[in-house]
Amino acid sequence: MKDLKGALIFAQSGGPTSVINASAAGVFLEGLHSEQVTAVYGAAHGIRGILNEEMYDISKEDEKELLLLKQTPSSAMGSVRYKLKDADVDDTDYKRLLEVFKKYDVRYFFYNGGNDSMDTCNKISKYMAKSGYDMNVIGVPKTIDNDLYGTDHCPGFASAAKYIATTIMEINLDAKVYDTPMVCVIEAMGRNAGWLTASAALANAQGYGADLIYLPEVAFDVDKFVEDVKNVCAKNNNKCIAVVSEGIHDKDGVLICEKLGETAARDSFGHAQLGGVASMLAGLIKEKTGFKTRGIELSLMQRCGAHCASKTDIEETFQAGKEAVKAAVRGETDKMVCYARKEGDKYECEYKLLPLELAANTEKTVPVEWIINDGTGISEEFVKYAMPLIQGEADMVKENGLPRFAKLKKVLVEKR
Amino acid sequence: MKDLKGALIFAQSGGPTSVINASAAGVFLEGLHSEQVTAVYGAAHGIRGILNEEMYDISKEDEKELLLLKQTPSSAMGSVRYKLKDADVDDTDYKRLLEVFKKYDVRYFFYNGGNDSMDTCNKISKYMAKSGYDMNVIGVPKTIDNDLYGTDHCPGFASAAKYIATTIMEINLDAKVYDTPMVCVIEAMGRNAGWLTASAALANAQGYGADLIYLPEVAFDVDKFVEDVKNVCAKNNNKCIAVVSEGIHDKDGVLICEKLGETAARDSFGHAQLGGVASMLAGLIKEKTGFKTRGIELSLMQRCGAHCASKTDIEETFQAGKEAVKAAVRGETDKMVCYARKEGDKYECEYKLLPLELAANTEKTVPVEWIINDGTGISEEFVKYAMPLIQGEADMVKENGLPRFAKLKKVLVEKR
Repeated sequence: MKDLKGALIFAQSGGPTSVINASAAGVFLEGLHSEQVTAVYGAAHGIRGILNEEMYDISKEDEKELLLLKQTPSSAMGSVRYKLKDADVDDTDYKRLLEVFKKYDVRYFFYNGGNDSMDTCNKISKYMAKSGYDMNVIGVPKTIDNDLYGTDHCPGFASAAKYIATTIMEINLDAKVYDTPMVCVIEAMGRNAGWLTASAALANAQGYGADLIYLPEVAFDVDKFVEDVKNVCAKNNNKCIAVVSEGIHDKDGVLICEKLGETAARDSFGHAQLGGVASMLAGLIKEKTGFKTRGIELSLMQRCGAHCASKTDIEETFQAGKEAVKAAVRGETDKMVCYARKEGDKYECEYKLLPLELAANTEKTVPVEWIINDGTGISEEFVKYAMPLIQGEADMVKENGLPRFAKLKKVLVEKR
Repeated sequence: MKDLKGALIFAQSGGPTSVINASAAGVFLEGLHSEQVTAVYGAAHGIRGILNEEMYDISKEDEKELLLLKQTPSSAMGSVRYKLKDADVDDTDYKRLLEVFKKYDVRYFFYNGGNDSMDTCNKISKYMAKSGYDMNVIGVPKTIDNDLYGTDHCPGFASAAKYIATTIMEINLDAKVYDTPMVCVIEAMGRNAGWLTASAALANAQGYGADLIYLPEVAFDVDKFVEDVKNVCAKNNNKCIAVVSEGIHDKDGVLICEKLGETAARDSFGHAQLGGVASMLAGLIKEKTGFKTRGIELSLMQRCGAHCASKTDIEETFQAGKEAVKAAVRGETDKMVCYARKEGDKYECEYKLLPLELAANTEKTVPVEWIINDGTGISEEFVKYAMPLIQGEADMVKENGLPRFAKLKKVLVEKR
């Protein structure tokens, strides 16, 4: 436990969410009000902003605008996908980070992101500890994918789930409006973890869901899919709504989108840029049945649809930011903030800390026992798990009937 | 002017909207409370429900549920795309309609839809008048496309516009989150009329819009598009958001989606890669620039996104249904309800009546003088026109954090 006084840097990394800036607001406001924090900086584009000394002075911002971050989607500081090499292979970046931290007397570092970002955060934490530089490092979780280990759920997941469930309910009514055949294939994000796709089950619980739900946790068979759709159509007046994860793959691990289409582009972490499998499957069904079909990709909307965010998610995500600062100033380091669900029927969330190395690079997928109906359905356990998380409305401040996003001045800290 | 007493039939036709059922609620509630209306029926799947004598007895529904229709997207009675032949070519359907109207003593007929539906409504109105059957026929407008002649705007347009503008604002933040190149091409509905695509300008007015907007009212040149995007990227840190209408076409009228579809990538089944024109243009830009791109189709969501509906639209659409019944019971027939904007700075809507033959089959497109910047921008006149229409929030009744759609009993009228 180190009782430190110094500057704070907060940085955002990886794909954004609808509520990611709620954590930024939590960190900034808590930091600005803490006696141990001498300055509050937001790094432009994650770790790269520190390497380049491009940091915003948050004390220059209006508190009202910082609070509006709670309803502003996508990383307000800018994000990055930057993979740090292992320090024992190449410590150039680490040395540079240490240099910047020293120059600005940074004693609190918060990294906001998912699996890869927690890996980055963990590496930095370990390097700074090893180098003897006194600094408290805390990871602030974020990911619509809900795949971080050690936390009951992840900030951002519930809002994406609420958007997906709401949208599927609406599409359900639209796709069934004519008395003619219609097969609709909807694609949700999730490379290896099917939490977002499973959110379709929340729409099912309201009576306007999907007939078939396919998660990446189980192998996807294209021929079986065609049969599944035909079976639903036969029972259901030639109507079927199927929801698939972008990451569905066959038993050999080959992505269905690559199997049916072209080779996907890859990002700097080597992950394929997925998308388009819904259209491909819709095209296939059209060919096999002659039915009218529609492939719908929920695309960026599912992760930036702040107008449909969950209030529970917003407030928890805000609190996660505050808890990160509280933990750091009381001497905690090398941890990630995580959520724990209190025992009992009424949903309540507690904030705990988890060693960073446990959070880094471990993916939490949907329990296979929650995947039912021969890989085409989701059990009640999931609904019981996820339903409390999507409660409450964003109640956005609007301007001209449209969202009023936070307007930050983004005053750059003078380079030293 | 015919002072009639008898049953009322309301039917919905064509593609649904987020608020189409608000008109149903207006017609039903006004009809149920009118002394001249002896029964209120909703036809299943438009005109086909009348031909098949499949009609729901609306008096069996709870008023609370009828009011929930105001927040229930997609045609609750079911829709249809059914083109009536000209009566002098083939009057089979007309004779059958007359038979059903007589059998159930139907004296009020309301048809809810867009251009094609107003054509159907007009034909039926003319036939019934010619046949000497006393009946008042009123068209209730509906179309997200906003392309009906004679009305200031169309029920359903504003909610789709609000959804599109809100979503573009959110995508704007998301697409610009990394410090790497990103070109995002977003596709809105509208085959011949660009009103929905123009709605991107509402997002621009808030500061989070599109760099380029292409409407189907002007010819689209693929090579110029590539240059336009490159020019925006050069000025804008390699970021560009373009919004295109699904109906963009070249100077010879060939749809761009068909033009590019021919040379689109082929999948392992040998058929052209599916997906709309946005994906094709995004693919093209990727090929020409090497930049990361994303094609986003707003698909069904833009017309069923009731959770993001405009309160102004909901209430006007509800009122349009009530006004239709009020007009019919006071003896009006052969008209469509339309909106007129009162003079003055403060937006106010009046309800008027337009002869059905004027409403039928005439498309109202965006004035070309509102299309600026060499076909890539939308003028302030559009924003001034559309902004008042998207004001106010849906304030949906929710259940479990998700929309609570109307649950109708749909009790079929016993066949006579």
